[in-house]
Parts: sequence; C-alpha cells; structure tokens
Amino acid sequence: MTNLADRYQQVRAFSEALAAPLSAEDCVIQSMPDVSPTGWHLAHTTWFFETFVLGADPDYAVYDASFAFLFNSYYNSIGKQFPRSQRGLISRPGLEAIRSYRRHVDRALLRRLHDRAADTWDAGTETVIELGLQHEQQHQELMLTDIKHVLSCHPLRPCYRPGSFVSREDEPADPAWLDVDEGIYRIGHADPTFCFDNELPQHRVFLDSFRVCEQLVTCGDYLQFMADGGYRRPELWLSLGWQTASEQQWAAPLYWYHDDDGWHQFTLAGARPIEPELPVCHVSYFEADAYARWAGARLPTEAEWEVAARSSSLGEGFADRLLAAEAALHPGSRSVASSLYGDVWQWTASPYTPYPGYVAPDGALGEYNGKFMCNQYVLRGGSCATSTSHIRATYRNFFPPEARWQFTGLRLAQ
Amino acid sequence: MTNLADRYQQVRAFSEALAAPLSAEDCVIQSMPDVSPTGWHLAHTTWFFETFVLGADPDYAVYDASFAFLFNSYYNSIGKQFPRSQRGLISRPGLEAIRSYRRHVDRALLRRLHDRAADTWDAGTETVIELGLQHEQQHQELMLTDIKHVLSCHPLRPCYRPGSFVSREDEPADPAWLDVDEGIYRIGHADPTFCFDNELPQHRVFLDSFRVCEQLVTCGDYLQFMADGGYRRPELWLSLGWQTASEQQWAAPLYWYHDDDGWHQFTLAGARPIEPELPVCHVSYFEADAYARWAGARLPTEAEWEVAARSSSLGEGFADRLLAAEAALHPGSRSVASSLYGDVWQWTASPYTPYPGYVAPDGALGEYNGKFMCNQYVLRGGSCATSTSHIRATYRNFFPPEARWQFTGLRLAQ
Amino acid sequence: MTNLADRYQQVRAFSEALAAPLSAEDCVIQSMPDVSPTGWHLAHTTWFFETFVLGADPDYAVYDASFAFLFNSYYNSIGKQFPRSQRGLISRPGLEAIRSYRRHVDRALLRRLHDRAADTWDAGTETVIELGLQHEQQHQELMLTDIKHVLSCHPLRPCYRPGSFVSREDEPADPAWLDVDEGIYRIGHADPTFCFDNELPQHRVFLDSFRVCEQLVTCGDYLQFMADGGYRRPELWLSLGWQTASEQQWAAPLYWYHDDDGWHQFTLAGARPIEPELPVCHVSYFEADAYARWAGARLPTEAEWEVAARSSSLGEGFADRLLAAEAALHPGSRSVASSLYGDVWQWTASPYTPYPGYVAPDGALGEYNGKFMCNQYVLRGGSCATSTSHIRATYRNFFPPEARWQFTGLRLAQ
Amino acid sequence: MTNLADRYQQVRAFSEALAAPLSAEDCVIQSMPDVSPTGWHLAHTTWFFETFVLGADPDYAVYDASFAFLFNSYYNSIGKQFPRSQRGLISRPGLEAIRSYRRHVDRALLRRLHDRAADTWDAGTETVIELGLQHEQQHQELMLTDIKHVLSCHPLRPCYRPGSFVSREDEPADPAWLDVDEGIYRIGHADPTFCFDNELPQHRVFLDSFRVCEQLVTCGDYLQFMADGGYRRPELWLSLGWQTASEQQWAAPLYWYHDDDGWHQFTLAGARPIEPELPVCHVSYFEADAYARWAGARLPTEAEWEVAARSSSLGEGFADRLLAAEAALHPGSRSVASSLYGDVWQWTASPYTPYPGYVAPDGALGEYNGKFMCNQYVLRGGSCATSTSHIRATYRNFFPPEARWQFTGLRLAQ
Repeated sequence: MTNLADRYQQVRAFSEALAAPLSAEDCVIQSMPDVSPTGWHLAHTTWFFETFVLGADPDYAVYDASFAFLFNSYYNSIGKQFPRSQRGLISRPGLEAIRSYRRHVDRALLRRLHDRAADTWDAGTETVIELGLQHEQQHQELMLTDIKHVLSCHPLRPCYRPGSFVSREDEPADPAWLDVDEGIYRIGHADPTFCFDNELPQHRVFLDSFRVCEQLVTCGDYLQFMADGGYRRPELWLSLGWQTASEQQWAAPLYWYHDDDGWHQFTLAGARPIEPELPVCHVSYFEADAYARWAGARLPTEAEWEVAARSSSLGEGFADRLLAAEAALHPGSRSVASSLYGDVWQWTASPYTPYPGYVAPDGALGEYNGKFMCNQYVLRGGSCATSTSHIRATYRNFFPPEARWQFTGLRLAQ
Repeated sequence: MTNLADRYQQVRAFSEALAAPLSAEDCVIQSMPDVSPTGWHLAHTTWFFETFVLGADPDYAVYDASFAFLFNSYYNSIGKQFPRSQRGLISRPGLEAIRSYRRHVDRALLRRLHDRAADTWDAGTETVIELGLQHEQQHQELMLTDIKHVLSCHPLRPCYRPGSFVSREDEPADPAWLDVDEGIYRIGHADPTFCFDNELPQHRVFLDSFRVCEQLVTCGDYLQFMADGGYRRPELWLSLGWQTASEQQWAAPLYWYHDDDGWHQFTLAGARPIEPELPVCHVSYFEADAYARWAGARLPTEAEWEVAARSSSLGEGFADRLLAAEAALHPGSRSVASSLYGDVWQWTASPYTPYPGYVAPDGALGEYNGKFMCNQYVLRGGSCATSTSHIRATYRNFFPPEARWQFTGLRLAQ
Repeated sequence: MTNLADRYQQVRAFSEALAAPLSAEDCVIQSMPDVSPTGWHLAHTTWFFETFVLGADPDYAVYDASFAFLFNSYYNSIGKQFPRSQRGLISRPGLEAIRSYRRHVDRALLRRLHDRAADTWDAGTETVIELGLQHEQQHQELMLTDIKHVLSCHPLRPCYRPGSFVSREDEPADPAWLDVDEGIYRIGHADPTFCFDNELPQHRVFLDSFRVCEQLVTCGDYLQFMADGGYRRPELWLSLGWQTASEQQWAAPLYWYHDDDGWHQFTLAGARPIEPELPVCHVSYFEADAYARWAGARLPTEAEWEVAARSSSLGEGFADRLLAAEAALHPGSRSVASSLYGDVWQWTASPYTPYPGYVAPDGALGEYNGKFMCNQYVLRGGSCATSTSHIRATYRNFFPPEARWQFTGLRLAQ
Repeated sequence: MTNLADRYQQVRAFSEALAAPLSAEDCVIQSMPDVSPTGWHLAHTTWFFETFVLGADPDYAVYDASFAFLFNSYYNSIGKQFPRSQRGLISRPGLEAIRSYRRHVDRALLRRLHDRAADTWDAGTETVIELGLQHEQQHQELMLTDIKHVLSCHPLRPCYRPGSFVSREDEPADPAWLDVDEGIYRIGHADPTFCFDNELPQHRVFLDSFRVCEQLVTCGDYLQFMADGGYRRPELWLSLGWQTASEQQWAAPLYWYHDDDGWHQFTLAGARPIEPELPVCHVSYFEADAYARWAGARLPTEAEWEVAARSSSLGEGFADRLLAAEAALHPGSRSVASSLYGDVWQWTASPYTPYPGYVAPDGALGEYNGKFMCNQYVLRGGSCATSTSHIRATYRNFFPPEARWQFTGLRLAQ
C-alpha cells in the first residue's frame, strides 16, 4: 500500500512544516475560546490516529493514558474531555514531547500499513486512515487561522512566515457571470472517492435558473460598501448581524486597521496595505450578507454553488501551492483566478442542515459532523489555508454566522 | 366596509379580554429580556395602527409624541427605540392611560374606515389594516406566553384564568401516519387572501416521499424519553443543544417540576399534574430534535409539513375556541384532534430562510420578517394561544432553537 | 405609652405619604439589583414589625404565611428569602393588598401597645418597636433613592413630587474650617437613647490634630474639578476607582447630563440646571476621594467627623423639614447651612469595621449590621432623604465605594 | 558599594533559580486574570530596573522600546500598558530572549554601580535600586503563587519542585497566648533602613489590652471547623463572604480536594494528604474571619499584630531558608515555630488604609502602593514564598478579601 503510506507521511510532514516557524511559547497560546494552541492541534491529530486506527488493535499499548483526556476534542463516546476553552492551560506535554508522540504514532502506524497483509488488517482501516488524513488537513487549516489570531493579539504584530505577493496589474477587471438553467439537480457525493458523511447521500434538488459571479468580491468592492455607510445602515443587515456588529463595534473586516497611511491588514506575512484587487477576507456571514444586499445581489445557496463549480478547476490559491511557490499564505497572493475554488471560503446562503436521508455513522465517528448542524452556515470552495488534496465540489465547510477568524469571503449570485 | 370594521373591533376587543384578568402591577413586569410587559403589548399594537394607518394622513395629530420612542419595537426606519430588554422599566403610561390611548386610536381608525370614500383613502390602507390586525393577533399570543412566564416566576404560581380540562379516556391511542409521494410541490402562499411576506413567493420544491405522524408527541411519550435518560445522553443531542441543556440544567420541559406527588406543570389555569395523553409543550428545538432521534424518527421539514397539512382542517386547540368553551388555555384541554393544526406550534427541521426570490417590502414594513431570517427554526400549525383567523397552511412562525416559553411541541416524520 | 404609639403612627404614616405620589405600576419596578420596588419596602417594613414584635406572641396568627418568604430581606435565621435581584417580579400582592397588610399590622401592634400592661408585655418589646421604627426610617430613605433611580430610567424623566428651591444669593461664599486638637477621644454611643449595634461600644481613639471644612463641596467646586480633567487623570484616583469609572464611563455625578444648555440633573422634583452653590450629590466614594486629592485635601475619618459634629446642630436639609416646607427633596433646596448634618451623606475615609469589642446581638437581629462590615465605607450626617428623628452624631451609614444612587456628597478635611 | 552589588546579584539570581524548574511553555501561561506568566515576572522586574535606575541616565539606550508597553504593570505616569488580563497572549519575547534582556540590564546596572563615583551618580539611586530589589522579591513570591495556580489547573497536577517535609511528632500541641497591655503605641517604620511608603509615617494608635495566639491555625483546627458545618452556616460569615463562597462553591481551602483516601492538597511539591499539624493555607479573608468567629475569637488588627511581633524573631518558614534546606516550599515543611513570622501570611482584621499623614511619593513610584488602598485587607508576617531579607515587623501586605491563591492563613486574637 505504497500510496497511502506516502500520502500519510506527506500529510503528517505538512503539519510539522506549518509549525516550523513557531516557538514553543507560540505553540501553547489560546487567544480566544474558538482558538486551539498549535501544540494541541499537533497532539490531537495524532491522538485521532492512535485512537481510531492503532487503538483498534487490542495489542496496541497506549502511548500515554492521560492524552485521551487532554487531546480528545469532542468525542463523548470516547470519554470526558478537558474543556475546550482551557486548552491554553496545558503547558505539559510541551512541544518537544508532542513531537516525540507524533514520531511514536507515525512509526507504529507505518509499521501497521507495511504489515497490512497480516490478519489484523481490517478492510475499513484504510478508510479510517484516509479520514484521519482529511481530519489532519482540516486541522492544518485551523493551525494557520488560529496562529494568525494568536499573533494578531500581540501588540507588535509579528510575522508568521514571509512570502511573496504578485503584482496585480494585468488582471481582468470586469466580473463575468456564469448562468445556470432551472431543473432538478443531483447534489452531494456519489463516486467511490473519499468524502465526509455530511456530503451524503446524493439527492435531488429543484433549482430555479440562477447566475453566479466568476470573481470573488474584492477589497476594493468592499471599501466602496464601507464608504457608502455599510457598517452604519441597519437596513442592510440581518437583525442578529446588526446586533453583533454593534456590540463588537465592527467597522471593517477582522485584522483590518486604519492609520495615517489608510487601511492596512495584519496577514500571516506581516502587516500590509489593503490592495483593492485582492479578495476581501475575514468577513462574517453577517457582513457577507449585508454586502450582497447593498450590491443588489445575494449569496448563492450551497446547491447553486455546487452545480456551478462542477465545471471549474482548482486555481492557485491553496496552501500547498502557495508554500511551494514561496508566496504569502494570503488570498490572492499569486493570482486572482476565475476558478470558483480557493483563496477564500465562500459563505453561502444555506444553513448547515443534514441532507435528506442523512444518517450519522455508528460509534464515535458519528460525532464528526452531524451534531454540529445548527446555527451554522455552509461555506464552499477552500481557501489559501486549504490543501488541494482536501477540496472537491461537494465539500461542505461550516461556521457560525459571526465567525471571522477563518479565511472567509464571498462571491455574489442573482 | 362593514366587515373590516367589525373584524377590527373584534380583534381589538380580544386583546382587552386577554388582559382583563391582570392587575396593573402584573401588566408592567418583564421577567426576562424576551418577555414584554402586557401593557407594552397593548400599547405597541396600538402604536402600529397609529403609525402605519393613521400616520399616513398628514392631518392626523399624534396622540403622544413620546410613544414613538417607547412603543416602537424594532423598526429602525421609523426611529430609535427604547431598548427591548428594558421595557419593564416603563411604569408610565400606566395601564389606564394605555387603555385611553387604545380608545383614542380605535375611534380615529374606525372614523377613517367609515369615511373611506373620501379622497384620503388609499387602496393599500385596507391591506395595512389587515396587517395590523394579524400583527395584533401575533401579540395576543405573545401576551399569553409572556404573562405565563411572568406568573411562573412568582413563587406562589398564581393562576391567570381558570378553565376546564376534558377527560381523555375515549381518545385514540395508536398514532397513525400520513404518507406523501415524491414529486415537485408548490410551496408558499398564492391566493389573494392575506399572508405575511415571508410566505412569498410561491415556488417549486422537490420532495422525496415521506410520512408524517397524525398525532402530536404526548407528555406520556416524553416521560418515556426522560425515563430512558433522554437528558443525560449526549449522543441524542445536537452539540449546541447539549451545551445549552447542560448550562441551563434542563431535565424536563419548561414549567414542569417534580414534587412528592410526581411530575407537575405550571399552566395558565394554575398548577396541574402531568397528564400523559396531552401534547408535550414548552420544549425547545433542541429537545424536539433529541426526542425525535431517540424515537428513531425525525422532525418534518416545513415543506413536508405544508404539503401534509393541506388536507387537514382546524381542530379545537385555538385560543378563541377555548375561551368560548371556557376551557383552559392549554394544549389538549378540549381534545387531542388528529388535525395537524392547533394545540402546540410544531418545530420543523427547517432553519428560517427566505424563499427563493423573496424580496422584503419597501419601507419600514420591510423590517417585519426578513431581517430575522438567521439562527431560527420554522414552526407550523398554531397553538392554544393562536386565534383561528390567524392560521393557515403556509404560515411560518419562527423562534431560536433554545426558546421554550412559547407553546411549542412536535410531531414526528420519517 | 402614648409617646411610642404616637411615634409609631407618625413614622408609619410618613411611609404612606412618601408613596402617595406613585402609581401602582411605579411601585413594582426594580431598575437595578440594588433597588427595591416601593411596594416591597412598604411590605418589608411591615413584615419586620409582624415578625419581631407581633410574632413574639405565640397567639398571634400570621397575616399571610407566604410573606415570610417574599418580604424577608436578608435574615437567614428566619428562613429562606426570595432573591433580592428578583424583587421586581413580585406583582402580587399588589399595592392595595400591601396597604391592607399595613393596616392589619398597625391595628394589631397598636392594640398590643395599648394593652401593654398585660402579662405578655416584654420589657424588650419597646426596644424592638423603636428598632422597627428606625428600620422603617432607613427604608423611607431607600424608598426615595430607589424611586429616584426608577424614574431616572424612564426616558421622559418624570417628576416624583414638585417642590420649591430657595434663591442662593445671600449665602456665604468662603469656606470656614473647624480646628480640633490632638488627643484621646471617646467614640461611639453611650447614653440610654436608641442607637444601632454598630455604634457600640464606646471606645477610645487617639487622633492627631485636624481640621474639617464647615461647608460641603458644591456643584461649582465639582465643575472646576471636571473642567480640570478630573475624570481623565488616573493619578487622582484609586486604582479600583479608575477602573470602575472607565468601565462605567463616568464623566459627571450620577443623574447629571449635558445638553445644549449646559449641565443639568434629574431630581425628584424634575430636571433642573446645575446650580453651583448647591452641594454636589450622587458621587461615589471613588469620586469623593479623587476630588479631595485634586483639592489638596482629604476626606475626614469617621472618628474625626464624630468629634467635630458634637458641637453642631441639625440644619434644614432633612426630609421631614423639607416636606413640611414644601421644598424639593434635594440637597440645599432650602439653605446651605454650616451645620455638619443634612443635605447629603458625607463619605468618610473610614472603611466600615466593627468597633473594638463589638458583639453582634443574639438571634436574627444580630444580622442587622455586623455581617455587612466588609468593602464598604462609612458615611455620616444624614441627607435630604433622612428624617430628623433618625440622625445623631454617632450614626454610621455605609455603602460600597462605587455606590452613587444614594444622596452622597462630601466635605473636606486636612 | 560592594554590598549593594552583591545583594543585587543575589536577588536577581534567586529569580532565575525559581524559574529553573519550568519549561518555556510553563512560563507563558496565565491561568486567571490575577496570575501573571513567569516570563512576564522575569521581564517586568528587569524593566523596573531599566526604567527607574538606568533610564535616569539620559545616555542610556533602551534595550527594546516595545518592552515599555509589554512589561509596564500599572504605572500610568510612564505610559499605556498592555492589559493585565491578556499577559498570557505575549509569546514573544520568549523565555530565552527574556533571559538575554535580564543579562543586558544586569551588566549595565552593575557597571553603573561600579562607576558610581562618577558625576552621574545620584544620591537617591541606591534607594531606587534597593526598591527595585524589594520589588523583585515581591515578584519572586508572586512567581511561586502564580506558577502554583498554573500547575494546579493542569489535570495531571505536575510537581514544581520536590522537597522534604519533616516529621511533626515532637511539636507542642497547646496554643499559648501573648498578652499585651492597653496604651498608646507607635506604629509604622521609623529607622533608616528600607521600608515601603505605605509603612509611613510612624504614628500613635490607642490600643485596648489584647492577646494574640502564638500558634497559627492548623489544618487540624480547620478540619474541625469544616466538620462542624463551617461552610454551610451563614451566621458564621460576612454577607459578602457567604455570597462569594456560595457562588464559587467553596467547601475547603483552595487546592484541597477529597478522594477515596480523604482530604488532600496540591502543593508545589506535588499532591499530599492533609497533615493536621501544618498551618492551614490558601484561605480567603472571608474564611479566616468565619473560622475566627466559629472559634469564639477574632483576627488581630494590624496594629495589634505589629506590637506583638516586635518581640518575635524570624522562624524557618521562608523561601530562602527552605530552598537551602531542600525542604518543600510549603507552610510548615520544616517546623511550626512559635515565631509570629513566616509559613503563611496572616490575615488581619484591618482594611488597607493610608496611615494618618501618609503622602504618596512624587512621580511614577507614587503609584506603587497608595492607589490600591481600597477593598483590600492587610496581611502580616511573610510566608514560605517570602525571603527573609524582605520581611519586617512593619511590613504591610494586602489582598482583596476573596483572594485565596496566595499563601494566606491566620492566627487568632482576643
């Protein structure tokens, strides 16, 4: 099973690469309840493999019994968890000890993969390993968004990792629209490749005809919204959005700040002036919705997005491609392609609900997705913090409408 | 226009009748931020007519200029509002002064209706009057749910109004199911009678085949869920529901309490033992969803409910019918009909979203519905606090998933 | 015992007179946790007499058994209490029912006073009745301060009771100082007249020589402090005061507001412009302390105040004298006397601690004072909301340093 | 000035020694707002020397301009500070960088001490250096109390540093009392050695005769209080204490927990069973006060304590002596001496107020003590986390009455 072992090593090494620029101190900070420390991400993803793959073998000796409490995220079926909001209190194991834990689990898992002909090999194990890899890729994205938040709280705005930004001059200015006819469409995953349970089952949806914009909304577009009083006009906002924006005193996307030289933003590559051609990012659903209303348009539903994206190919705005090109981990640092994928996750108008006929898997892995289907909105397309091997047309990401610390932007529909 | 004038007087008198059992002190209490004092409801509904009907006439002299601030609920287009959470601070105008305000506006509005042939009569005015009446009927329901909450906070559990409960012995025990075939269905309001903007536009939805239970879930059913550890088993709950239930220490529906004689509940007719045959009420979406999962079923979507309800007629469980029969204002006090309507609002699995093509009306009345379409779930069918002239198959009620103080229950689907 | 019966009727009637301008709705509002509704004050003071005087007679039948729960303030020895912060939820008994309760207890108590020769008369009963009267006088002051807060929360700033303000022109401008020599002084109550337990025992204190200003700090003085950046200069403030002032955004005394015509304040007689000659009022200990530091002086200790006040007589600034003169219930509405008593309670520099040798009384009445001796400061002198028969040189009032809704001001010492 | 240079190096090295057992991750954690990370303590004490000693020389080049914001604790005169409650967000500078900063400042300061004959040497500089050393000794105590809290939040209760506990068998059981006569006593510091400003000026106080217990209250004593319902009897508590204990669900001192083997406590040397002979520790003022009331005694005032302690010499229970003896940093680990000093800070009955005639110093150092004189209580005597060169009879420590994470215990008075 060379391919899976290779892929395992590749994905695991990518986590290490993402943590490489950070100090031990950086890796233990939790800057808000939604954020987890980098060290915790490195340990939790390892615990996932240990618990769901290695732990299926009754002869496997657990590395450290206390880790089941410290690094279980939310699997009630497995046992009690250390409270999420207190992950920043766990200074031990430290970063080096967590790396040893990773090496130990990697060795054990690769050995199992190598010996897979033996009797203990279960037909479903490869599926769980692939799930563990997709899970680790999700946490890779969270490592980037969380460390961005951590560093943004530091008054000196330290740079996570430098990276290049291409010049924007030659890029197309006028947005183009993609038209789709009315009809009954099949939505959801159907082929034998990996997908999460929330992409199932494939099912039929009736859609009226619609159009989706081929370009993302840009910082320049958004500055016009701001200049037109976007943050001061309640008629543009959902009631809950207006309340949230007022209480939290929103006046621009997260990480934007204004000084004598105008609008700037904190990025993973340090502070930079706002560039109008780049996709707007770190906006909540509330802001995306208000912007669309102001623009005389709306957000696409997730079914519309999925139908439109079938004919699109991946662009440059993904974490692995940006790192390979030494570009900044920031939306549009290489190009603003007309691909419907990448750069920023795109808010859809769709609350996160189970597909008709959805059934959560049995056991602890049944807690992966289904129990979060409430008060969240679906996002589609992947971002500059996503890996290309982790995205597809049917992929459903989800966050609460007030969340801003993810790489979230929008495209318009009509 | 005799009919509209009659209906106006009837609806307005019903509000007065609902407030009749209460003292001046009762009418000023706000027991939680979601609750409004009875006096506020009586004044706000009057302000609605004054502002949107009488105020359209430039010659009309406003009764009291300060009321626009005190009794505007959430219409930002009209002006600033007194904060909702502080309505319990407004001791003036008192109950008698509010009643004078109501008489003044009633006289002026009935005079306008009588003189409607005159030039000032606008074709849309009747529509706005009907909207005002439907609006007042919504507040009649809120008056009942809010005063129930207020009285429940009093350590002596005072009775709002006595009322009869019929014996349950002759009623059918076995639940029956209504089957519906797959197909494209038209959902939403289409005929020329009144509807709210959120019921528009009518549109096509593809539905797989489904079945809906003809009976509501009863207190007896729910006691089995409780006995089976329903409130102690996280695997039955949405994650947000489990968190809410834990924080608020839910162990039974709101208003239930356990003493030496077993389970009881506070009702508008005073405290009573739990009767297993009656519909369970005052459960949140989270509890309804957990119950359905425990029962091996699910909640219907709002489209499924609407399709199923088209063939059903109204039952006895409505406020006007119960009052006329001197029955208690409580679900099932007269009968537990197999009607899909009445007794309790039924949680659906559908987040409250705009229908495809929905456009909010221009002006202040555009704030009526659209801006609340976030983090709420649709309820269908009307309750024992609803009037029969206020319900229809397409009616969409909505509350946040944690709300329990409304008359909310559930029916199962598969 | 004619005198005690007369005094009883007089004090009880004064409570009724203070409630007379209020509606039933006014009397049920609780505008913040520290405030109690007027109806609650009227009932609680009555419960005090019923419990501690009438209840001592085993033959006395309690008026309503539920009142022990509703109207017990904080006497854990008596039993559980309804939570203080929820007193605004008790709409029943209403104002009329509370008045009936008062009449019932008054009749029973006066009958007992009349029959006191009988065997049931306990030597200590008169002491407890006098305690009940002093207790009711404390609540009379709270009724005024609490209803002032309630009405101030109403956007229309309704007037509690109109009243005159004298012209200030002829009054002395230059502050005079009272000098006292160093020595050992006896502090605390010693003669056989009534006092609270916290004024005992009399004890010796060594004082260095000091001086106390004969005039109160005025609004004019305080405006200078404000103009000199008093609310923006942390070096003038205690750390906890600066934090409180920042969080609560203090920029002037409570009830002051600034409009196009300059500084105004809400008073029990309605809104009025700030008059520089009147004593400043509704300042916290933090503000009083900061003002004194700014002025190059300090607050007197309570022992200094008591020594200085022995030679002073009562002025005009007391509730009974102001009402008799139809003057406004506001500091300085009649005159600004050089008396050390009246108009505003004066913050001292002394935390509220037990006197050396202090022992709380046995039983429930032992909870009256001692258990509050923490994180409060002593105030001296009485205010425009105090009755003249309720004040003396040794009287110790106390509030937390952040409290502002009492009639609290200051005088300087050096 | 050999002595001061030696002392400087000794005190600074002691800070390093205290941090030595900790990892970089340990040193960045802030487990509650009152706690500061160890790294922050190491940097802040260095910033103090740099700012107030080196910074007085206009030729001195600041090491890192950003540190003035990051490591200023509360000196508003110096400039804005990073919020205290967010110190746990500062991952940079990391522990190694902070150590470099310490070495840099140490070199510069020792050079200045060595060159002190030069013209730039100010007569007051030595005083400020000594203040900086006393300041660092205060933070050494905080390092220990804060890291104890941090480690106690870790579910595995890691040991900070092992240490011995002597056997208790030979120690005296019966408490002895020290009697003092009434009289006028001089309180406060008067000789030319170092003291903090809050120990000044010396002044006269009249004291009645009193007695102070020579032994500290022990865990065994306290277990009796607990067994007698100490935490369930409101009549033993101050009202604010009862409220705090109820809200925070106190049932034992902080760090105590009960398991199948009885009561244990978390210590800096790991978890241990409760030993009855050891002084009780980690109790709040509220608990100390309730215990004293239960025991029929009271807490001494700070003046009583100071008078009684004049004739006492230091015991073994200090940080430097315990470390030298390889004993645990825990009260009573070596002996329970009859000294009035050491092992635990002793709550007094005295709110923390300025002495008569107290004047805060000019400039930023005037913010050291005076502005905290509100809602705190004085503690006397030093603890197992204090150095012997940092304690004296007149030393006034202070904490809010609810604080428990310091090494706080009590002795009785009568």
